[in-house]
Amino acid sequence: MTEHDPQYLAELAAQLRVDSVRAAAAAGSGHPTSSMSAADLMAVLFARHLRYDFDQPDNPANDHVILSKGHASPLLYSLYKAAGVIGDDELLTFRRRGSRLEGHPTPRLPWVDVATGSLGQGLPVGVGVAMAGRLERMPYRVWVLCGDSELAEGSIWEAAEHAGDEGLADLTAIVDVNRLGQRGPTRHGWDTGAYARRFAAFGWHTIEIDGHDPEEIDYALQDACKTRGRPTAILAKTRKGEGVLEVENREGAHGKPLKDADKAVGELGGPRDVRVTVRKPDGAAEPYRFDSAPLEPPAYEVGEQVATRTAYGEALAALGAARGDVVALDGEVADSTKTEAFAQRFPERFFEMYIAEQQLVAAAVGMQIRGWIPYAATFAAFLTRAHDFIRMAGISRASIRLIGSHAGVAIGEDGPSQMGLEDLAMMRALYGSTVLYPCDANQTAWLITEMAGVEGVSYLRTTRGSTPVIYPPGERFPVGGSRVLRQSSGDRATIVAAGVTVHEALAAAGELETTGVPVGVIDLYSVKPVDSAVLVEAAITTGNLITVEDHRLEGGLGDAVLDAVSELGPRVVKLAVTELPGSAKPEEQLADAGIDRHAIVEAVKRLL
Amino acid sequence: MTEHDPQYLAELAAQLRVDSVRAAAAAGSGHPTSSMSAADLMAVLFARHLRYDFDQPDNPANDHVILSKGHASPLLYSLYKAAGVIGDDELLTFRRRGSRLEGHPTPRLPWVDVATGSLGQGLPVGVGVAMAGRLERMPYRVWVLCGDSELAEGSIWEAAEHAGDEGLADLTAIVDVNRLGQRGPTRHGWDTGAYARRFAAFGWHTIEIDGHDPEEIDYALQDACKTRGRPTAILAKTRKGEGVLEVENREGAHGKPLKDADKAVGELGGPRDVRVTVRKPDGAAEPYRFDSAPLEPPAYEVGEQVATRTAYGEALAALGAARGDVVALDGEVADSTKTEAFAQRFPERFFEMYIAEQQLVAAAVGMQIRGWIPYAATFAAFLTRAHDFIRMAGISRASIRLIGSHAGVAIGEDGPSQMGLEDLAMMRALYGSTVLYPCDANQTAWLITEMAGVEGVSYLRTTRGSTPVIYPPGERFPVGGSRVLRQSSGDRATIVAAGVTVHEALAAAGELETTGVPVGVIDLYSVKPVDSAVLVEAAITTGNLITVEDHRLEGGLGDAVLDAVSELGPRVVKLAVTELPGSAKPEEQLADAGIDRHAIVEAVKRLL
Repeated sequence: MTEHDPQYLAELAAQLRVDSVRAAAAAGSGHPTSSMSAADLMAVLFARHLRYDFDQPDNPANDHVILSKGHASPLLYSLYKAAGVIGDDELLTFRRRGSRLEGHPTPRLPWVDVATGSLGQGLPVGVGVAMAGRLERMPYRVWVLCGDSELAEGSIWEAAEHAGDEGLADLTAIVDVNRLGQRGPTRHGWDTGAYARRFAAFGWHTIEIDGHDPEEIDYALQDACKTRGRPTAILAKTRKGEGVLEVENREGAHGKPLKDADKAVGELGGPRDVRVTVRKPDGAAEPYRFDSAPLEPPAYEVGEQVATRTAYGEALAALGAARGDVVALDGEVADSTKTEAFAQRFPERFFEMYIAEQQLVAAAVGMQIRGWIPYAATFAAFLTRAHDFIRMAGISRASIRLIGSHAGVAIGEDGPSQMGLEDLAMMRALYGSTVLYPCDANQTAWLITEMAGVEGVSYLRTTRGSTPVIYPPGERFPVGGSRVLRQSSGDRATIVAAGVTVHEALAAAGELETTGVPVGVIDLYSVKPVDSAVLVEAAITTGNLITVEDHRLEGGLGDAVLDAVSELGPRVVKLAVTELPGSAKPEEQLADAGIDRHAIVEAVKRLL
Repeated sequence: MTEHDPQYLAELAAQLRVDSVRAAAAAGSGHPTSSMSAADLMAVLFARHLRYDFDQPDNPANDHVILSKGHASPLLYSLYKAAGVIGDDELLTFRRRGSRLEGHPTPRLPWVDVATGSLGQGLPVGVGVAMAGRLERMPYRVWVLCGDSELAEGSIWEAAEHAGDEGLADLTAIVDVNRLGQRGPTRHGWDTGAYARRFAAFGWHTIEIDGHDPEEIDYALQDACKTRGRPTAILAKTRKGEGVLEVENREGAHGKPLKDADKAVGELGGPRDVRVTVRKPDGAAEPYRFDSAPLEPPAYEVGEQVATRTAYGEALAALGAARGDVVALDGEVADSTKTEAFAQRFPERFFEMYIAEQQLVAAAVGMQIRGWIPYAATFAAFLTRAHDFIRMAGISRASIRLIGSHAGVAIGEDGPSQMGLEDLAMMRALYGSTVLYPCDANQTAWLITEMAGVEGVSYLRTTRGSTPVIYPPGERFPVGGSRVLRQSSGDRATIVAAGVTVHEALAAAGELETTGVPVGVIDLYSVKPVDSAVLVEAAITTGNLITVEDHRLEGGLGDAVLDAVSELGPRVVKLAVTELPGSAKPEEQLADAGIDRHAIVEAVKRLL
């Protein structure tokens, strides 16, 4: 039998169901019924339409398959077995300690682009992969298997809007409309028309099919390949648990192994040894890359007044000239974040994502899958909108660079809704993250360049208002470092600051010196990883640390310092934002929040 | 002139523009052009359709007006002036320190229900207010003024889906399609049809109008009032900066005062003194409330094995019987979070929000505006999806109760995408938040009841697996408290834990005792506010603290402890999750993360 034989497709699908049941049975947990509904869809995709070189997962011509309904991992792993890249023994390690076949797929597997399992994320990431394909002038296709339940997520409609508007024809969403969510029926049940109307309204080509009929599936996938100028959504009516009466189309069978796996396997026709030969991509197209040139970073004179957000924009534009693989994305605020400087110079590598922060981050994740170096910016406050996407990017070990502007109360009159006051806490707590908070333009420029080489999720926080340039151009600021700005043998305390509060700390130290109280000042521009050695030395030398940050008291710079010195036990006083700000001028805000120079002076006096 | 005279409506709208220009000029910042585009829309609404008693903002029959495009605050404040509830002097305090007329509206003003300014949030909150109206059997209307830019936010489509599916006919979205976003043109420009198709696909009645024609606006608002069974979206084509040639329909005029305010005021026909008499609601309908009864909380026997998520569900059901004002919402995982127990007993007060966490939280915010006591639950990990909504709830001083289940690596095989590992950091850093993390069923039940009276955003974290009941039924656990579980005069260190790690800490302490090393154990169930007194005493007494938590190292329980004792300087060792977990059994996960009993024993030994 070949893939041209409908019976072959039925046999392959049956084996995928059998293996999904077996894997979940071996694990004692997992989602076999969610796998069974989509088995025919994926069998036809793998046998007839997918172009993927399993021997070379990094072949740039490969299609991309994203399991947006990540809990259907048994199906994915069963497909890998059928494709011959994992054995039956490994399949049965599903969900065991140390196995790379995790409960939800992660890129520990070379054929997995991105971790899924938080619903509504696979399609937005797929949009990013398709955006990269257009930029690279590569003909690969992006196939995203979605569940019907996850279409309730707003992020799906951010993706639908972006893909529809951009006409990303190489993107296909295959929606497994199995009618049943985790707790019970979905909102629209088997009304595939409800979903089709929604996708169509966002500019997609749509097709409604029986998701268990190989010929209908084949027609739909062909149709998707032929459709030009629009992405395609295939709305496939399926039955959850298809093939096993005990669970088929029944409530209460989500996310658990079948009661009698052997019986179910028998009902499915028993184990088989069907192999699927996935066709390799045709030709050897090479992704288009943009020119590179020597780096000419912006340079600012000491004493100049420059906002760090401006330095970010100019440094990114310089980096864009130096590196053709750098791309920039922004959430419709490029004039405020200053991504505009890059957008004007490299319009082809700039992506306006409009006010859709989840898709903003997902697009960055998607593009880094293809080897691009994405920088994505919006207000620091609004990155909270994408928290779950950033969390999952961490789990994917995706290398993305996020820039949050308008940090802290220092923005002034706009008030609390626009103030990034929780961003350091959010970013520090992520797996494998790097958190940077520069205080001047040259430092910002250096760190923006440095971020290109940082793995994982890295974050840089910028300030709206101008601050004086205190470092000469070209000084190095390694990630994980800090800068001792004031130090003397008589120091009675050390002030640890970053960003806008560095300047307040310097002013406070100057004032304290005139009253005979010498204190040190550390610029802790790398909030994670933190320069423990320097902090420990300060803790030992002065024994008194004052941290000051334009951020809430919890989870930010102060906590990073406490954590670094906790086993030593110096006295630490944290100055941070504790109340709810209103509107006021920047300097009034700093004063009202108790993080300006006067507050620092008072805190030092109280401590000593 | 009366509100029946079209000339009156034009005069009122002109005054709103004049006052928006004047307010921004006085402030030196703000968004006059975004106010000017919507002036006709709001003039007609206030003069002819709104039912609102400005003398009694808490009149339960009042309509609700939500400014989803919160940056158009000058328009809102100008409306308040026209309604006679603020004077011209106060209008000109816009954005000044101490003024309640903030850059973006907040409930410091008695006529503002919810803080806006993070786009895409007003409509989802409006959905919650409309849901409450149905529950209360009240005929008030909910009017939400949206910008066109914010329709890119996925949260708007979560709201569209929920409102469309529920047929919330009392909800009207008035969309000010002024074509220009912050940075430049919106995706769809003046294509009101593009938006109408999208809303219609989600089941809304739609109407496209000229947003500067009072009669068309009036017709559309009437149409919205008459439409049954469906919410209405009015897509109004407008010109940003309408009425002043310097800025009208021009790019680059967003978010800044007009260059020559006096000239602009002249062009708009000069200052006026037009008053608007908003009609008060008819009749005196009283909101329907459900019966209340004495509280009969669940009770668990010491030694029983019960998951805290189960105790949450049962306690919430008991609270629902005791308090008719308690409502529950869940993100399509009520069988896992165990909100199911409430849903089965009080189906009318349970709201299935499907997998749309932003709308889940927004609905809770909307319902508390109407005096309901909402509890909203999903996996702790997926609450990150709603971070920005929770942040804004804090700024609104909204009292909502969030429950995050499946906390930590202790969930086991499902892997990192499903593990709440950043939730404590996220919740602690919010303004005015309360963070609770119980370790047994009776403690959970007590705290769930306690939360009903907690103001602001409160959060309780539950565990998937069963844990032994260690407290007898009826013990009190005040917010801000802790429980010393082991203590002796010879203690050489104190272990501070919460939730699942309390049991690991007790086991470790038992093992250490057998080797002659007595240590204390504190159950820090209230992570914020934290029981500083008890922690300080432990710091003074033993001088060695070991914190252990099933959460990332940053921003959680350990940092809360460090913060509480930082000015004293004890030695503190934090045990927390630092690596990326995979799939494994719960006890394997705790061991691999280095937060189980053995890891605690080792940490104590290393420290001493």
